[in-house]
Amino acid sequence: MSEFPITKRTTLKRGHKRANHQSEVIHAILDEAYLCHVGAKMGDRPMVQPTIHWRDGNKLYIHGSSKNGLFQTLIEGEEACINVTLLDGLVMARSSFHHSANYRSVIIFSKAQHIIEPEEKLRLLNLMIMKITPERYDDIREPNDNELKATAVLEFDITESSAKIRTGPPVDDEEDYALPVWAGVIPLSLQKGAPINDPRWENDLN
Amino acid sequence: MSEFPITKRTTLKRGHKRANHQSEVIHAILDEAYLCHVGAKMGDRPMVQPTIHWRDGNKLYIHGSSKNGLFQTLIEGEEACINVTLLDGLVMARSSFHHSANYRSVIIFSKAQHIIEPEEKLRLLNLMIMKITPERYDDIREPNDNELKATAVLEFDITESSAKIRTGPPVDDEEDYALPVWAGVIPLSLQKGAPINDPRWENDLN
Repeated sequence: MSEFPITKRTTLKRGHKRANHQSEVIHAILDEAYLCHVGAKMGDRPMVQPTIHWRDGNKLYIHGSSKNGLFQTLIEGEEACINVTLLDGLVMARSSFHHSANYRSVIIFSKAQHIIEPEEKLRLLNLMIMKITPERYDDIREPNDNELKATAVLEFDITESSAKIRTGPPVDDEEDYALPVWAGVIPLSLQKGAPINDPRWENDLN
Repeated sequence: MSEFPITKRTTLKRGHKRANHQSEVIHAILDEAYLCHVGAKMGDRPMVQPTIHWRDGNKLYIHGSSKNGLFQTLIEGEEACINVTLLDGLVMARSSFHHSANYRSVIIFSKAQHIIEPEEKLRLLNLMIMKITPERYDDIREPNDNELKATAVLEFDITESSAKIRTGPPVDDEEDYALPVWAGVIPLSLQKGAPINDPRWENDLN
């Protein structure tokens, strides 16, 4: 396991027992999650937007319309704070105060690199498709020149990052263990349902 | 359906067909989701943190340690941008470019009100328990004075907010519908698993 350097902002001031700076742990959380939340100052006000992300090595990528305001702000050099959180369970304690959640969360601080070179952009967008639908990768149409131009791809270094993880049962005050209330964890996970055919795909079959 | 007033920042500049300002729609998304992402400037740098939220009327609430840095920043008057996103599906198109996601997302801009009065704080924390585990509400121990003091409860007005929603099948370029690749939606949803008993609860039974 390799450790990322711990900076002032990736030092967890509270709950430090839940902190983790191992790159393998951080990369695995990023790979499992589809969605990140990207925050930055826009003017003097805060903005947070959700978007799909993917990873290549120690870089995180997002893509979007080159006209998106937050993307423009990031391209102009505003620093991003990116959070990725997998909610793994609701932790049911015997006291209200000790209720909690099990989760795996990563926070990254990085300025964006705007990927401009078309071949690199195409390689990266193909990696996104490989993350989301590898089994269809060979059959879908790649982006054409106009689509590549309309798509901004932003790269973030993952080095200034930390994970925060909670697992396991509730931790109650000793005197509360006698209370006659169920305690434990309700697991939560993002599950895939049965695929829904595009109506026009179904019609083509008939 | 009642409509929130549309401000400059809650006007969706792109994808406006996906925009929604109806309070009932926004409230329903907030109520279904457990997790929000709270962003704000900390000093001159961005911060985004995940946390559990709940709602009462047209107010959103979060709670946390009164020592949390982001909470301190919000108490001092920094504006928050809060995003709540439910990822409903992966939208599989025939072209890479038209891949998308189905989602219901809410963005709120608001400064925090720090709830200090103990009885109101208790009422609000009880509402959180009612959201997360209503069936256990009567049996768990309420917060005591020290726990109430250690817990900061922040209130955000939901008025300056908007929802952005995508549903339905992929929308491909007309010429791509002939491509021999499956297209449709892979539904995603956060599912509860079988409850895991706290080992100390199980032991008490034996």
